[in-house]
Amino acid sequence: MSDPYQDPAAPRPAPPGGSPADPGSQDPYLIISSDCHAGLPTEEYRPYLERRFHRAFDDFLAGRDARRAAMTRLGVRNETFATRWFEDHEEGLRGGWDPAQRAKELDGDGVAAEVVFPDADAVDSSTAAPFGVGLGLSGDQDPELGMAGARAHNRWLAEFCATDPERHCGVALLPLTGEVDTVVAELRRARDDGLGALMVPAMWGAGAPYHDRRYDPVWAAAAEAGMPVVTHSGAAPREEYGDHLGIFVSEVTWWPARPLWFLLWSGVFERHPGLRFGIAESGCWWLPNLLWFMDRLYLGAHGGKKLSPFAGLKRPPHEYLDRNVFVCATNTKRRELAQRYEIGVGNILWGSDFPHPEGTWPRTREWLANTFHDIPIDETRRILGTSAAEVFGFDPARLAPHARRIGPTPAELGQPADQEPVAASWRRARETGRHWLTGQDFPYVGVTHA
Amino acid sequence: MSDPYQDPAAPRPAPPGGSPADPGSQDPYLIISSDCHAGLPTEEYRPYLERRFHRAFDDFLAGRDARRAAMTRLGVRNETFATRWFEDHEEGLRGGWDPAQRAKELDGDGVAAEVVFPDADAVDSSTAAPFGVGLGLSGDQDPELGMAGARAHNRWLAEFCATDPERHCGVALLPLTGEVDTVVAELRRARDDGLGALMVPAMWGAGAPYHDRRYDPVWAAAAEAGMPVVTHSGAAPREEYGDHLGIFVSEVTWWPARPLWFLLWSGVFERHPGLRFGIAESGCWWLPNLLWFMDRLYLGAHGGKKLSPFAGLKRPPHEYLDRNVFVCATNTKRRELAQRYEIGVGNILWGSDFPHPEGTWPRTREWLANTFHDIPIDETRRILGTSAAEVFGFDPARLAPHARRIGPTPAELGQPADQEPVAASWRRARETGRHWLTGQDFPYVGVTHA
Repeated sequence: MSDPYQDPAAPRPAPPGGSPADPGSQDPYLIISSDCHAGLPTEEYRPYLERRFHRAFDDFLAGRDARRAAMTRLGVRNETFATRWFEDHEEGLRGGWDPAQRAKELDGDGVAAEVVFPDADAVDSSTAAPFGVGLGLSGDQDPELGMAGARAHNRWLAEFCATDPERHCGVALLPLTGEVDTVVAELRRARDDGLGALMVPAMWGAGAPYHDRRYDPVWAAAAEAGMPVVTHSGAAPREEYGDHLGIFVSEVTWWPARPLWFLLWSGVFERHPGLRFGIAESGCWWLPNLLWFMDRLYLGAHGGKKLSPFAGLKRPPHEYLDRNVFVCATNTKRRELAQRYEIGVGNILWGSDFPHPEGTWPRTREWLANTFHDIPIDETRRILGTSAAEVFGFDPARLAPHARRIGPTPAELGQPADQEPVAASWRRARETGRHWLTGQDFPYVGVTHA
Repeated sequence: MSDPYQDPAAPRPAPPGGSPADPGSQDPYLIISSDCHAGLPTEEYRPYLERRFHRAFDDFLAGRDARRAAMTRLGVRNETFATRWFEDHEEGLRGGWDPAQRAKELDGDGVAAEVVFPDADAVDSSTAAPFGVGLGLSGDQDPELGMAGARAHNRWLAEFCATDPERHCGVALLPLTGEVDTVVAELRRARDDGLGALMVPAMWGAGAPYHDRRYDPVWAAAAEAGMPVVTHSGAAPREEYGDHLGIFVSEVTWWPARPLWFLLWSGVFERHPGLRFGIAESGCWWLPNLLWFMDRLYLGAHGGKKLSPFAGLKRPPHEYLDRNVFVCATNTKRRELAQRYEIGVGNILWGSDFPHPEGTWPRTREWLANTFHDIPIDETRRILGTSAAEVFGFDPARLAPHARRIGPTPAELGQPADQEPVAASWRRARETGRHWLTGQDFPYVGVTHA
């Protein structure tokens, strides 16, 4: 397997504490949240928006109540929960746009650095970016308004991140389905402004699907700029769901994952080996099955023998996955961690989702202890921080003082200094790994108790 | 858990050989394929089609070459493979529409009975039902032509199954998105004609999504008629895929599964407790994650705490799954069998996919030995036959002579008479089961060797 995190011989970024030579090191963790959110109260975006869009912005603001009512009807917004949430967290939630308050909240959670997606308020949407280009970014938006709204958010976000650039990697909104030169220009403007990653619509809607060659200049520019391209859960074909919340939640993680197989099978990762593509806040539980399915297909499984060969690829899907793809899996679940040797330990990036209620804030330390206490420390270091540093270009050396100051130690996560029994409990799962590549026809997912 | 197959106290249909009291019985297996295919060479459907559609049928026939070229371009059809396939299997493939040849092929495979879906020819589509209503059945078809084509196939299929009704359960094509009274009338006509199940479009296209109350009379009629409603892989939004075969194959199993969560979350299974819904030839590897995700959501996982309660359901998703849902998982994979305690052993129905090249024909006995040799015999009996008998209404007593005549014995599948060590090797996986319901936060998927 080519996952450098599964090959002890491959170089990997040195974590600030702990090392392969000392897997039980009690140095504090460098924690980087690969999925946080920030955004201005919507009306405050006005100064960041070109004047010619101000009238359209007034119309957008006037639609707020109707949009909130629709969300309440679908059940994504729960009035009772909302009231209590804002009462209980009034001060902390200002960290959604106030840098000083934010630093306090990150510190409290032990988070040294973060990747910053839009939409601070996931309860009342009071910080929606103009024209709905935040997490709902979709190929169906009006291209001109969409780009105007994205630029407004990106300008503000660059200012916000500049207050402490070592700790914040801002994700620029990129309405990918628009005119290509405009898209590439905004990408470069965002990079020059200090933003470090790109969020593209999870759904292309009526736009061209992401296998289309028209996007090649964008992928090339992203790779050249060293900006990972990410989808984030949010957009979904709600018009098909009626007011059935369960349907929405059941597939809102599928749509952002969908571009992955469009890029992979159409050879985008072959043509752009430096491109990094990630999927945020959609879990990673679905990845092992997908990978198994795609690898087997490519490697000649019986079920595909009637098909033409996959000539557009030069290597099996898992090699692209390990080289080009990562998952901002946010608040990783125990079920997902049990499958990490199939997913690839180095492909999983944890996140707190601050300041969203489905995340771990303000009890991240407690969540981490509950989730990671029996996971090997060296793997925990990758999932909680070093992989995100590598993907998003954080400098571990510069973050080390923060990690020392606020990072929880392995002992604080309940992880024993003697890591031998921990390693032993995962040995069989680790050795089985991606069973379709290790000669095993059964998977082995789970811990082995002595 | 309410899965009767996981509760030793619950009644279950007696298999023709073997019993809970004698799990090592060497009686031959009753094998029922829950996924086979039959269809006339397209032009021969003419006498089954109402005369007023004959001109449209000529137009449809004239488009055959163009459709085949499009499939070749996408790679679903491979010229080299096709030539060899028809050379090697000329005689057996006539079993796609010839009852006598078919009986020979089923016997050779050890298959006592079968569920019969459309489209015998999955290589050249030379047996496509009129107007594309076979496996490509979609809500986007012209409602009048679609119903005409469906009726033509259903009439022929009823004659075909009547040649040996005990061994064939015919699946009527039901273009669900049309006018409701017409749909219900065709359902009843098909039942009166002796067909036993209903295939509905995997995709509703521009039609109403399946949560819509307009379909309630159809669900009620299906439940009343005792006809399971099934989707089958085939339809997919190909216009989004370009000519990228891998994209098509990666999601052609998602679209037929999609109706499951539309039905479940919109309360269809609550309103129609007798309705059975199945998903065919889409594997079952995706089911454990879906169930885990839906159950957790319903049972109050942290990630859903900001949402409104799921008031439309009276019980957690897995209870509907075990009562109302089954999976025609076709040629089950070892990875899937390792997850059977999460899926529910009784929810998995094996199938040979005869006469499609991705299936197990004509080497079904060999496939079964390779796949099931270390699976407990009593569970194998359910997956290979008794669950399908129960879902599709086959009479095990009447099929017993066929089973005795052609069914492979457990020894022929390489299964040992002493089942103690086999049971022991699966004990931990079985006891962990659906870990989110058994108090375990890690799954345990895989076999334990002594």
